[in-house]
Amino acid sequence: MLEQVDVDKKMTKEEYDKKMDSLSVKLGELQRKCREQKIPVMVIFDGVDAAGKGTMINRMIQFLDPRGYRVFSTGKANEEERMRPYFWRFFTKTPERGRMHIFDQSWYRGVYEGEISEKDAVEFEKMLIQDGTLIVKFFLLISAKEQKKRLENMEKDEDTRWRVCKQEKENNKNYDACLKRQDTMLVHTDIAECPWVIVEGTNKLYATCKIVSTLVSRMEEALSRTNNKSEELPQQEPAEDCFRNGVLHGIDLSKTMTKEEYQKEKKKLQKKLRSLHNQMYLKRLPVVLAFEGWDAGGKGGAIKRLTQAMDPRGYEVVPTASPNDIEKAHHYLWRFWEKFPKAGHMAIFDRTWYGRVLVERVEGFATEKEWKRAYREINDMEEQITNAGGILLKFWMHIDKDEQERRFHEREQIPEKQWKITEEDWRNRARWDDYEKAVDEMILRTSTENAPWIVVEGNSKYYARIKVLKTVVEALEKKLSEM
Amino acid sequence: MLEQVDVDKKMTKEEYDKKMDSLSVKLGELQRKCREQKIPVMVIFDGVDAAGKGTMINRMIQFLDPRGYRVFSTGKANEEERMRPYFWRFFTKTPERGRMHIFDQSWYRGVYEGEISEKDAVEFEKMLIQDGTLIVKFFLLISAKEQKKRLENMEKDEDTRWRVCKQEKENNKNYDACLKRQDTMLVHTDIAECPWVIVEGTNKLYATCKIVSTLVSRMEEALSRTNNKSEELPQQEPAEDCFRNGVLHGIDLSKTMTKEEYQKEKKKLQKKLRSLHNQMYLKRLPVVLAFEGWDAGGKGGAIKRLTQAMDPRGYEVVPTASPNDIEKAHHYLWRFWEKFPKAGHMAIFDRTWYGRVLVERVEGFATEKEWKRAYREINDMEEQITNAGGILLKFWMHIDKDEQERRFHEREQIPEKQWKITEEDWRNRARWDDYEKAVDEMILRTSTENAPWIVVEGNSKYYARIKVLKTVVEALEKKLSEM
Repeated sequence: MLEQVDVDKKMTKEEYDKKMDSLSVKLGELQRKCREQKIPVMVIFDGVDAAGKGTMINRMIQFLDPRGYRVFSTGKANEEERMRPYFWRFFTKTPERGRMHIFDQSWYRGVYEGEISEKDAVEFEKMLIQDGTLIVKFFLLISAKEQKKRLENMEKDEDTRWRVCKQEKENNKNYDACLKRQDTMLVHTDIAECPWVIVEGTNKLYATCKIVSTLVSRMEEALSRTNNKSEELPQQEPAEDCFRNGVLHGIDLSKTMTKEEYQKEKKKLQKKLRSLHNQMYLKRLPVVLAFEGWDAGGKGGAIKRLTQAMDPRGYEVVPTASPNDIEKAHHYLWRFWEKFPKAGHMAIFDRTWYGRVLVERVEGFATEKEWKRAYREINDMEEQITNAGGILLKFWMHIDKDEQERRFHEREQIPEKQWKITEEDWRNRARWDDYEKAVDEMILRTSTENAPWIVVEGNSKYYARIKVLKTVVEALEKKLSEM
Repeated sequence: MLEQVDVDKKMTKEEYDKKMDSLSVKLGELQRKCREQKIPVMVIFDGVDAAGKGTMINRMIQFLDPRGYRVFSTGKANEEERMRPYFWRFFTKTPERGRMHIFDQSWYRGVYEGEISEKDAVEFEKMLIQDGTLIVKFFLLISAKEQKKRLENMEKDEDTRWRVCKQEKENNKNYDACLKRQDTMLVHTDIAECPWVIVEGTNKLYATCKIVSTLVSRMEEALSRTNNKSEELPQQEPAEDCFRNGVLHGIDLSKTMTKEEYQKEKKKLQKKLRSLHNQMYLKRLPVVLAFEGWDAGGKGGAIKRLTQAMDPRGYEVVPTASPNDIEKAHHYLWRFWEKFPKAGHMAIFDRTWYGRVLVERVEGFATEKEWKRAYREINDMEEQITNAGGILLKFWMHIDKDEQERRFHEREQIPEKQWKITEEDWRNRARWDDYEKAVDEMILRTSTENAPWIVVEGNSKYYARIKVLKTVVEALEKKLSEM
């Protein structure tokens, strides 16, 4: 893409002033409209060294209302970032709906440095775009000669000397080779939903003007799509009863265990877990445990038997309630990314991102398109966790309808358990069949080798708790022995 | 405080089980009540090495609903934390109203290591307590002999060996001296609103029980205070017209500047600022610029002339709107702490924490007690920024009533400026005198040597912008020359 570009395109000050006069007003207007329409915007700046990313960003933001944007400089990862999956620092920086986030460097640095693949980058963008985000990608280009001149000028000035490092001078010498690599990356990640915009960077007036006018037209496009959205009919999808694989029907809920066996096993497994928790901290292994299940299915009890054995400085229980205002204004996975553990730590999720394909599907909080898309999005996200070297185990705490009823009544009768049972629990129960269908499809579509679902036979609390403890202990032992 | 403590207090398993049976139910109940009453709770654990802080925290949280608490391990500061004022990492971790945050180590480590004073620690607590937070401070104590035994046991076990460092063995040898230092600290920071609770740590059953029962009684106390609150009459305060110092009346608003002078000066000052911004990054100087002023007083324009000259990767403009749900659920200073710049960066606040003594005072969003307390709280906070080596400049953009009216009308007439003027602006204008009184008192009470107010004569936009630029440039030059 880059070879044919005439980097020296020019613009006079008069042309610039004339164009920018109307463009700048328009940009401000569009920013306000995007806010009203709740469109999140991400603008990323990449390019060759010394191409003027900082200058361009600064010129652009002078036309924006500071109440609506933020600039992120995402060059080198910091301590906290290095201890999490690669996309953590970008996912947590996605804008609230209606806001604009501007990135000086982006996940493409990760592609360039081999930390993620081109496909990862594109999948990340597609997911956000499908969620309504407008992403605009600029690549700033100058010639080898211009680059050399700029680096020399920067070195001459004592204020900017520190910005020129050895690597940059090196890159300048190998300009052609570097460019080729970048070109390949651009070609592979130039998708229809979000094409690269190459900005000829020699003349800063021209570059600024191209950036602002591109942004203006992309924002106009995004707004017109939003306005037409209501007219679009949801696509007709095939009936899904064929997906019904009856996972849950095959579960043997008669499995049980005596109190004595339970206590003996529990003691033994908790002792092991205590030791393994220390080892995972030392070996910097991140662990995510995800708990889903029927109401009163025993999630809380199972989690408690895990946490009893561990040091609270090395684990966190993350309960998932309905999203708050800020969470609602982001992609539905954002709040979970925020909570992913750093290396050496364990996060235990009491209910999870699977809410998208369970409660949100059944109650109609997510559209059919949205929840169908979610399987893929979730698999991608989980892959990132395990690719970063982490363990991810997902438990479905399973009980039958009778057992649930028994437990609901028990909760109603014991005073200190009454707060645990609400009208909502009874309402959910009434939709058991819909939920069962959703659970079936979820387990089918998101059981992967790296992040398996473990269906826990839960009618016997003793049996269930031991199965969870044992599964965690065995997974930790296996992984740690390989590290 | 520590010398007289019988660290070996015991409790049998039967006594423990009996006591904890009712205590644990109560604790869960109180947690729910505190959530309903929106009382934020902070529980901090300090103590001698190997006294069992982790174990105690873990036992305590087994009785809590995970949807209501979080544990923070705040030993050594990380990269991000080291680049900000000391209390940043604690202020940003204060709980939302109704939630409980548990700290393994706290700001007392800062006291012990000489990073903050005992007074700083106490002032921080008092501020949160006045805002309705319940703080419970535990100090876990074991004898030198017991400590030695525990360290030896930890070293024997390969899982826990890594936890024992040289410092801890050293401290054990100098147990008496260490204890004396800690004792002094405890005595000096044992305030009526938040006394230290010494926990005899040898017997873990006894210790757990003491911790849980203390927590239960402190939560009960806090709840009874909240319930009685409505009956408390606000204290009668003396009239404040005596505070009226007429700062604003003395301002010469006729100061002006020609367009030519303005452009010449602006160019010169922006060039200097560009260079200084580089130097402050290199020397890791954090800078906070705070802008307040009448509506249409020229804040935005002045900020723009600053930002035009700087690299966007080194500054952030932070606009302050009315607080969102999450922000409302915290101390009013929390959201500003979140935004304080790290070393080498500049944060420019468009409206600030002074809203507490301006709009919140005038509109009655804060009670009289609350906004009167705020002067002291704000001075303390600002002192922390400047004590950490930062620059803090506060600008009041001043215009007179006629000039404001002229600008409002102008905004209404120019299409692309219409969004800038709302009904609210006219409403605020109607309360000009009340605001003037509030501004006068604010400037009087919060003008400190380290964080001065600069009243900017704003009727002439040219004059005002140059004054702001010049003030910033001179402050940076002065500070940087001393570094």
